[in-house]
Amino acid sequence: MMHPIRILGIDPGLRRTGWGVIESLGNRLSFIASGTVTSDGKKDLSGRLVELHDGLARIVGDHGPTEAAVEHTFVNKDAGATLKLGQARGIALLVPARAGIEVAEYAPNLVKKTVVGTGHAEKEQIRAMVKVLMPKAVFNSDDAADALAIAICHAHHRKSAAGRLARAGAA
Amino acid sequence: MMHPIRILGIDPGLRRTGWGVIESLGNRLSFIASGTVTSDGKKDLSGRLVELHDGLARIVGDHGPTEAAVEHTFVNKDAGATLKLGQARGIALLVPARAGIEVAEYAPNLVKKTVVGTGHAEKEQIRAMVKVLMPKAVFNSDDAADALAIAICHAHHRKSAAGRLARAGAA
Repeated sequence: MMHPIRILGIDPGLRRTGWGVIESLGNRLSFIASGTVTSDGKKDLSGRLVELHDGLARIVGDHGPTEAAVEHTFVNKDAGATLKLGQARGIALLVPARAGIEVAEYAPNLVKKTVVGTGHAEKEQIRAMVKVLMPKAVFNSDDAADALAIAICHAHHRKSAAGRLARAGAA
Repeated sequence: MMHPIRILGIDPGLRRTGWGVIESLGNRLSFIASGTVTSDGKKDLSGRLVELHDGLARIVGDHGPTEAAVEHTFVNKDAGATLKLGQARGIALLVPARAGIEVAEYAPNLVKKTVVGTGHAEKEQIRAMVKVLMPKAVFNSDDAADALAIAICHAHHRKSAAGRLARAGAA
């Protein structure tokens, strides 16, 4: 008997971190939940990171994902923005890992290519394809839709990763 | 009766995060402890961040700082390096904040100016001045010496920050 894999996708950001939980069973994808964790811009940075941490920790506790995936991206022309993103991303990687969940990383182009079919998709195309692939999906922000796309990307690529691991183990 | 302030300084980095704990009583500074938390480059990124988290959480538990300070820096020409630093920095800010400790941030130039007297000091000058200011200080890496310098910087500037807060409260 096959068990569904429950995947948490995270699109990290200091102001808004999108998250989405899906289940993958064979080729079937099911929407479980999605949302956005926000941090209060009036707080100092460490307080904002605690908000992201506590929000994500609650989601991991509520939805019990068995695998996680985080988008791997940076802002090439703005070191300050990249540093902010990195700080939020550190929390997004830490929370599932501390709960014993393996965390995969995917480049934005691969996420778009997997979900939309091209590496240069617009936000609207991603939202639309997430709805095609999981008609019951609801999301309250572009970040939540992106997080679901990241989870879908992981559902498609984790098999080949498992295959690679199996081959590496056999070598 | 005055109570000493116990300050944790952190110089974050994914490979090596330096830390230093000092006490400040009036104008007197005392060295308490310092060291370097490292992460295993063979692990995946989320596992390395857990190592940094657990190492820093242990230091907070062992030494009970009441205030913390983290260097605010980024690598301007390399977005990948800045992202890595940001991730480590996110953990460095999170750990004391989750323990209820306020975390201040200081630019590298201010740290150097406070400790050495000029914003463009070399590593050796920082090490030397940390020893002058706290003859009993020992450190096992440049990162640990930098972390002590950050803690010293906070000991000097926290008063004016408290003054600002007091004035803001009175306004």
